[in-house]
Amino acid sequence: MFFASDNGLGASDRIMAAIAAANDGSACLAYGRDDGTARVERLLSDLFEREVGVFMVTTGTAANGLALSTLTPPWGIVLCHDESHVMEDECCGPEFFTGGAKLVGIRGPGAKITPEALEATIASLGRRVPHNAPIHALSLTQSTELGLVYSVAEVTALSAIAKANGAGVHMDGARFANAVAALGCSPAEITWKAGVDVLSFGTTKNGALACEAIVYFDPARGAEMVRRRMRAGHLLSKHRFLAAQMEAFLADDHWLDLARHANAMAARLAEGLATVPGVRLPIQPQANGLFPIMPDAMVEALKAEGAVFYPWSDKGLADADKARKGETMMRLVTSFATRGQDVERFVAVARGAASAASAA
Amino acid sequence: MFFASDNGLGASDRIMAAIAAANDGSACLAYGRDDGTARVERLLSDLFEREVGVFMVTTGTAANGLALSTLTPPWGIVLCHDESHVMEDECCGPEFFTGGAKLVGIRGPGAKITPEALEATIASLGRRVPHNAPIHALSLTQSTELGLVYSVAEVTALSAIAKANGAGVHMDGARFANAVAALGCSPAEITWKAGVDVLSFGTTKNGALACEAIVYFDPARGAEMVRRRMRAGHLLSKHRFLAAQMEAFLADDHWLDLARHANAMAARLAEGLATVPGVRLPIQPQANGLFPIMPDAMVEALKAEGAVFYPWSDKGLADADKARKGETMMRLVTSFATRGQDVERFVAVARGAASAASAA
Amino acid sequence: MFFASDNGLGASDRIMAAIAAANDGSACLAYGRDDGTARVERLLSDLFEREVGVFMVTTGTAANGLALSTLTPPWGIVLCHDESHVMEDECCGPEFFTGGAKLVGIRGPGAKITPEALEATIASLGRRVPHNAPIHALSLTQSTELGLVYSVAEVTALSAIAKANGAGVHMDGARFANAVAALGCSPAEITWKAGVDVLSFGTTKNGALACEAIVYFDPARGAEMVRRRMRAGHLLSKHRFLAAQMEAFLADDHWLDLARHANAMAARLAEGLATVPGVRLPIQPQANGLFPIMPDAMVEALKAEGAVFYPWSDKGLADADKARKGETMMRLVTSFATRGQDVERFVAVARGAASAASAA
Amino acid sequence: MFFASDNGLGASDRIMAAIAAANDGSACLAYGRDDGTARVERLLSDLFEREVGVFMVTTGTAANGLALSTLTPPWGIVLCHDESHVMEDECCGPEFFTGGAKLVGIRGPGAKITPEALEATIASLGRRVPHNAPIHALSLTQSTELGLVYSVAEVTALSAIAKANGAGVHMDGARFANAVAALGCSPAEITWKAGVDVLSFGTTKNGALACEAIVYFDPARGAEMVRRRMRAGHLLSKHRFLAAQMEAFLADDHWLDLARHANAMAARLAEGLATVPGVRLPIQPQANGLFPIMPDAMVEALKAEGAVFYPWSDKGLADADKARKGETMMRLVTSFATRGQDVERFVAVARGAASAASAA
Repeated sequence: MFFASDNGLGASDRIMAAIAAANDGSACLAYGRDDGTARVERLLSDLFEREVGVFMVTTGTAANGLALSTLTPPWGIVLCHDESHVMEDECCGPEFFTGGAKLVGIRGPGAKITPEALEATIASLGRRVPHNAPIHALSLTQSTELGLVYSVAEVTALSAIAKANGAGVHMDGARFANAVAALGCSPAEITWKAGVDVLSFGTTKNGALACEAIVYFDPARGAEMVRRRMRAGHLLSKHRFLAAQMEAFLADDHWLDLARHANAMAARLAEGLATVPGVRLPIQPQANGLFPIMPDAMVEALKAEGAVFYPWSDKGLADADKARKGETMMRLVTSFATRGQDVERFVAVARGAASAASAA
Repeated sequence: MFFASDNGLGASDRIMAAIAAANDGSACLAYGRDDGTARVERLLSDLFEREVGVFMVTTGTAANGLALSTLTPPWGIVLCHDESHVMEDECCGPEFFTGGAKLVGIRGPGAKITPEALEATIASLGRRVPHNAPIHALSLTQSTELGLVYSVAEVTALSAIAKANGAGVHMDGARFANAVAALGCSPAEITWKAGVDVLSFGTTKNGALACEAIVYFDPARGAEMVRRRMRAGHLLSKHRFLAAQMEAFLADDHWLDLARHANAMAARLAEGLATVPGVRLPIQPQANGLFPIMPDAMVEALKAEGAVFYPWSDKGLADADKARKGETMMRLVTSFATRGQDVERFVAVARGAASAASAA
Repeated sequence: MFFASDNGLGASDRIMAAIAAANDGSACLAYGRDDGTARVERLLSDLFEREVGVFMVTTGTAANGLALSTLTPPWGIVLCHDESHVMEDECCGPEFFTGGAKLVGIRGPGAKITPEALEATIASLGRRVPHNAPIHALSLTQSTELGLVYSVAEVTALSAIAKANGAGVHMDGARFANAVAALGCSPAEITWKAGVDVLSFGTTKNGALACEAIVYFDPARGAEMVRRRMRAGHLLSKHRFLAAQMEAFLADDHWLDLARHANAMAARLAEGLATVPGVRLPIQPQANGLFPIMPDAMVEALKAEGAVFYPWSDKGLADADKARKGETMMRLVTSFATRGQDVERFVAVARGAASAASAA
Repeated sequence: MFFASDNGLGASDRIMAAIAAANDGSACLAYGRDDGTARVERLLSDLFEREVGVFMVTTGTAANGLALSTLTPPWGIVLCHDESHVMEDECCGPEFFTGGAKLVGIRGPGAKITPEALEATIASLGRRVPHNAPIHALSLTQSTELGLVYSVAEVTALSAIAKANGAGVHMDGARFANAVAALGCSPAEITWKAGVDVLSFGTTKNGALACEAIVYFDPARGAEMVRRRMRAGHLLSKHRFLAAQMEAFLADDHWLDLARHANAMAARLAEGLATVPGVRLPIQPQANGLFPIMPDAMVEALKAEGAVFYPWSDKGLADADKARKGETMMRLVTSFATRGQDVERFVAVARGAASAASAA
């Protein structure tokens, strides 16, 4: 019953096989000048229905920081959600990569930015030159850290506000596959057609070993990335192995199959928990993460049975929804590798704990 | 006949098998809290005969930059060879990771620093506070970019000078295995026993997919590395796969076997070329790289036969040794995967070109 | 009627005379090795009743950024008010000087942080290593950007919370003199005795030409400042002129006299405006700034009569207090040079505009 | 007998009077929006015979670092002399302001770069993308740290090489006035007409209190400087006082008169010392600094008589010219305030020491 994160298991079989296959004894030029990398560039251009600039790295923090560094100068403001990964989980990575830009957090339930909140934040920022830092970027997480998904209309509306205020739009797509699977739209529709300038296209959380692609929808914007990636130590010499992962990820809609499975497991878990007394789900999951508020005794019972999962901050919830005394908001993340039997068992143990509690 | 670099082939079979084996379906905690990572820490402590601090990343540029950032403040001087990787090949990576430290290059043949040159450079640097930047680190490359190896006595002498001047000692060991194999010493003897404080311990060029370990011989010096690595986007979530590479690398002296093979191929190539008229070897190779000066017609003939290799700068050579008109200094790098037949054929084609030239 | 800021006039006569006197034709060593600088160090040690480390620079942004850079590593969090100068008015200066630290803004009326708000913000920040950036500093502005003053008890309480959470305490004292004059306490009481580690001690807004002192209450914490200041271009060669300003500022309590005058002018302005119909003062001024909410017609009438003053954001006010339609929150800043007659005239013009409005 | 530096005295009387006059009790907008600043912008456009962009700061290190930060990205190379101020005396300031660019030093006598040396250095730098950092700037010091002056032809030749290699040209003009006075050319001829893109136009060493102007000959290149200067804490609030210094500096060719005096004093000192046995002048002074090699006993005798001057590194000299045992290369700097009588006395004491030595 491993629900701690979507990176606790390894790689999908197809992706691991592709890595092994790339180790075919042939020599190739290093640092991305191999044929596999060229193929990936074409595949992503096809997938996104336009010529894109592609830069693969091994982590989402690198992809996000590098992408943002091309949207803002060191003295610019990056607008993002207050609970986003770039704000909270990268130990000042974006500040490092941008050379000192300021992240301004926007609050809102489900780690999701609304157009109203975006406009209010922008209105609250001064425009005195040169005192106030200017706004240069908006970063949206798709799907969000709390398991929600931005619709095409929402991304379009947010991007329009950003652009009207001089900001470029970055999408942190560490779980982009889960979002696309949930939305049923095309990758193009939810990115550049909706105003996104650069995407961190994640594969690691969705079945790869370690591969994230920075995708520029206007390749000219990424012109200097080749040097930024190098100096940050994010250009792999044996780059063919990144390409191999991405190629297998994209082939035959493997990436969507993996994401659909993870999403389906989360939905099943949510359905099951909805029937367990004492469990609340203030945020209705839309992708592969859910955040139930549970009695502490139930959490203990689940852990005793081997469930691996962790508490998460409920600070973004409305006060009425927050965990009360004796409760904790927990994070459950499903992945391409989550087994249905673990979902069933988790719900069953929770239900047992609920019964025990009501009997007590 | 691929001699372009030691990262043009994939991973050794044993290492690739270990990666595949790590993908065993079991769940584990991410970000280095897995058992494999703990085992690697113990293995490296055993290898180096003392408790070490270990931080694995995917590239040598990251390992070097991160390591140096813990030896110098942003306003310090890092002494290194003028032709070293940190100076020339990382696109200002060390400056990025350190927040703006100054690399001061020391000249000398074979990309090797002599104690005399180190002392002379130190003497030439001012000590006026706060105008002159203070010296904080010495970075040595083992084996060097031009295929030479520092002896234990040499590292000891250089470290002593560094320390007498307040500097910590970093060893860029992208080809550490080749050096140890060539020296026949223990890893401890050529590192901390000789005064090295932190080592970039490379595995990628010597048979791994992408894994470099930053090794602190005093773990306290690396105390903040856990956060530096995170904010630089160099902490892999599926960290188990780094650990798997390193574990296989170290097991049964696999790393030394791989390096010995590469070194032997380089020696064979050097022996063969020494007998070819018109080829000069101003630097006698000690590890897995050699830098012959060849007639341009010979280079063309080799390329026509499929040899992949590139020119290299001879700027560090004495004037008398430099390439003359109609000649070029070439770089030939052998690796764990270099085949003897390719070595033989390279020499044969070179000899044929020499005969053709003398007949003309 | 100049109320635009406290830096729109020049220097006080005494300070200007001291600058001229320092230009006495005598030669002295540059870069702070002059006798005047040594005297300032003794004077500030006397003033603060302990040995302090002193570093003079020309701007508050430099003093703040440099001071913070010694409290936090590049990956740390600096807690500050959401409307503070370091957050809003320095164009990412603190991020630049610290090498990328993250400023986390705390909300609250009057640009003042309460202990409750500080604790709530700290509680909302994750502590997962290495993902969440660690808290390293608290920056308090004394007096605040909205004209309030922290009491000794308040600073003590806030510092205690900071320290219990591992953070050092910085005080942005661009208007420190106004605060001390208002509080009637000793400089020691409101700084190190209340837990402050480093103070940006401003003189520019209070009568000097350009001089701010970074004051360390534990000189060891400022050990590396000599180099930080140099590389940031903030070490004046003719440093004697900074010393001359500070010496004159401190002599005979000149600094307090200047601040008392500015505060008195603000109080008189507030008293006057309190009697003008249509003017509201949601924040009761305690130092030398006041932020009346005025009818727009009154603002226009004042400007027509030559008053120089600007609108200010009311975002920190409770909704009930905010400017309504047809009103604007204005900033009025008094200084050492504000003339009583200008205060009287400002109030009179405002009153006239109010009468005209009620007649209409 | 103060020859320690050209910043050991205060300001010229005219400049100090201008500062005092600017303190006229009138209010003005802060941060450079005052009339005096506007006048300076016009004056400098007139002086340089074209529309320029002007940004005043208080130190040369700030001017240099800020100027360079607009010529190079953080991963670029700045070519400069190995003994230049930007390389040696700013404690990694250029690295700080540029965000990590690499300064590559070029050697040559008199701290002067020759076209041949520039070409050789450029040829030695690799061009492999993305490994080798690209060349983005050339920084020339006018006059040099060793008292020499670049001719118009020399600057033109060096700029042409820089531009042919994609680099912009910065001139560190901390002693620009001394150079212009020595050359007898127009400011335009030795700057933009000779290919200079941005000038650090110094006034401090030549009679001001603290004022250096960054001058862009294409104002568009300085477009972002307003924010860079702010975040670095280099925008003075009472900016009128910078303007006052510059205005007085430029008025009636005051700047050239001051520089001519300093240069004349240096020439007189050189002439005098040339006749003193045992003193060598391997570098013939062209501006206001000279670097005699003197017997140590003579140095001691001069110090005993009250002369203030310091040793300087002779590392740039040809071996035959370097100080021998019992000798030291000293730095003597004259300034706008150097008195003829001190020059005479210095020479006389030196001569006396020489006589005493020959008698011994």
